[in-house]
Amino acid sequence: MRGPDAVYVAVVGPGECTGAEDDLALEVGRLLAEAGAVVVCGGSTGVMEAAARGVAEAGGTCIGILPGFDRADGNPYLSFAIPTGMGEMRNALIARSADAVVAVGGEFGTLSEIAFALKIGRPVVGLRTWDLIRRGEPVTGIHVATTPAEAVGSALRLARRH
Amino acid sequence: MRGPDAVYVAVVGPGECTGAEDDLALEVGRLLAEAGAVVVCGGSTGVMEAAARGVAEAGGTCIGILPGFDRADGNPYLSFAIPTGMGEMRNALIARSADAVVAVGGEFGTLSEIAFALKIGRPVVGLRTWDLIRRGEPVTGIHVATTPAEAVGSALRLARRH
Amino acid sequence: MRGPDAVYVAVVGPGECTGAEDDLALEVGRLLAEAGAVVVCGGSTGVMEAAARGVAEAGGTCIGILPGFDRADGNPYLSFAIPTGMGEMRNALIARSADAVVAVGGEFGTLSEIAFALKIGRPVVGLRTWDLIRRGEPVTGIHVATTPAEAVGSALRLARRH
Amino acid sequence: MRGPDAVYVAVVGPGECTGAEDDLALEVGRLLAEAGAVVVCGGSTGVMEAAARGVAEAGGTCIGILPGFDRADGNPYLSFAIPTGMGEMRNALIARSADAVVAVGGEFGTLSEIAFALKIGRPVVGLRTWDLIRRGEPVTGIHVATTPAEAVGSALRLARRH
Repeated sequence: MRGPDAVYVAVVGPGECTGAEDDLALEVGRLLAEAGAVVVCGGSTGVMEAAARGVAEAGGTCIGILPGFDRADGNPYLSFAIPTGMGEMRNALIARSADAVVAVGGEFGTLSEIAFALKIGRPVVGLRTWDLIRRGEPVTGIHVATTPAEAVGSALRLARRH
Repeated sequence: MRGPDAVYVAVVGPGECTGAEDDLALEVGRLLAEAGAVVVCGGSTGVMEAAARGVAEAGGTCIGILPGFDRADGNPYLSFAIPTGMGEMRNALIARSADAVVAVGGEFGTLSEIAFALKIGRPVVGLRTWDLIRRGEPVTGIHVATTPAEAVGSALRLARRH
Repeated sequence: MRGPDAVYVAVVGPGECTGAEDDLALEVGRLLAEAGAVVVCGGSTGVMEAAARGVAEAGGTCIGILPGFDRADGNPYLSFAIPTGMGEMRNALIARSADAVVAVGGEFGTLSEIAFALKIGRPVVGLRTWDLIRRGEPVTGIHVATTPAEAVGSALRLARRH
Repeated sequence: MRGPDAVYVAVVGPGECTGAEDDLALEVGRLLAEAGAVVVCGGSTGVMEAAARGVAEAGGTCIGILPGFDRADGNPYLSFAIPTGMGEMRNALIARSADAVVAVGGEFGTLSEIAFALKIGRPVVGLRTWDLIRRGEPVTGIHVATTPAEAVGSALRLARRH
């Protein structure tokens, strides 16, 4: 699916991830591609590469929005890569470009993407990621999923509502 | 052609253009797509829409990097659209994402894209666009073309050298 | 204090805040200015305005990095204002411009600033703000303070180490 | 002069400049500061440093908006420095932050600043800088000045109208 009617889902997560997170991101990417979504990611390693690989294996499209200046720095599974030269600030571009965000695992960069997405009204689905707690109280925001299928289902359902 | 080995060429020009510029941009887009290049543009109207339409007619890929917040603001011929919310600052992203730039016609926004591209070392090919003159003296930078075929040939040749 | 040797501290927090948060931010701004720090904020209302007012009352300098296009949108207590036209993406600029960040209260935008700052290695001090919890476990990152004096002391001490 | 009522004028020009351009930028900075304007520049060497030095010698304020990540990369005459990590894309921020732009000399980066400023409606005054020529015909846009005093007078007069 291409063109203005496609659903865009960002998959965000750390550039260094565990094997379990790698497996989750691969499956999230695969399922999103099978559902016809355009996948957006940060284009780098770890969760970003696993998601892109899942998309590629399912014959879908994954666009990487890169922090650096050089398209060649993108992982080899990306369909397309956009080098921004903006460093971690490009996290905000990833959130903006998506109708929904799936976070898998996550370090501080992932937290910035979650927070940006919520700030600008993009639904966020989380798999083994941050909790939103403020002054000891949970804050509504992340839709917690326990499997890739549940995460992708929630993201697509929420994205369509967006 | 997709993936990290593809050549990316940006087509830049004004959002309101003459019929002649529209014809040129359409043909530039078509020829780039036929040559297998990924085309990048600002995703809006005028030259950007004509180029995207040419790409679409040839079955290629055109990525629009939009100034606003809403993907739906992209023209209907884009394969993919990235809303940036950065306004005209996104012109710098367009220049960065390309291995070569083809400018068709042009107002001040186009001049900013030409200048950015030259600043960061991207070759620029011009069709009926700005002249580079400083203190009365011509400055080397824009490769002047007189037809879409010549512009696309130069862009692809220079992009491969980049 | 001006020039390259000054310490820059960002004060971040929500554009709509409680009276208690307003009081805290005012005092944080005042104390930072008295200590000679250059204060950076998002230039808008709420915590940002209270911090700028505290700085102004102490005769210090507060630079607002605004989301919109118009300098006049900055709050009236700013010493200087930089309109970015980048929307919430400017949060990343605020984090980058600071040697340390003090977060007072906070919604999702504040969380994005905290996360960005931590991602790029800026120390973050928190007053009544987010907790960092991932999969039920606390994550080291925010230096929790309970008073403005403690927050400013920590920020200046950590900033000097940066 | 500080606060929301101040006039902001950007001084743009190349990071490597001739002695004549250095003299012009120094004088432009000095005259702008004497007139009470806040001066904005790219914070680097060449014209940017000369302008900042002129401002400093007159006791004014010069804010540098830096391309890199490190405030310490700013030239030593800046009153304040904002590191952006955006590379040359920060040229667009400089144009946005100003009520008028004075261009002194100029390479491609300067041309991008001129073009951005004109695109978003900021008046541009030029001293020994680019000519605006499109398809052999001059295009209205840059107010040509021959001395720093004339440039500063034009910039302040046009900025007040803005």
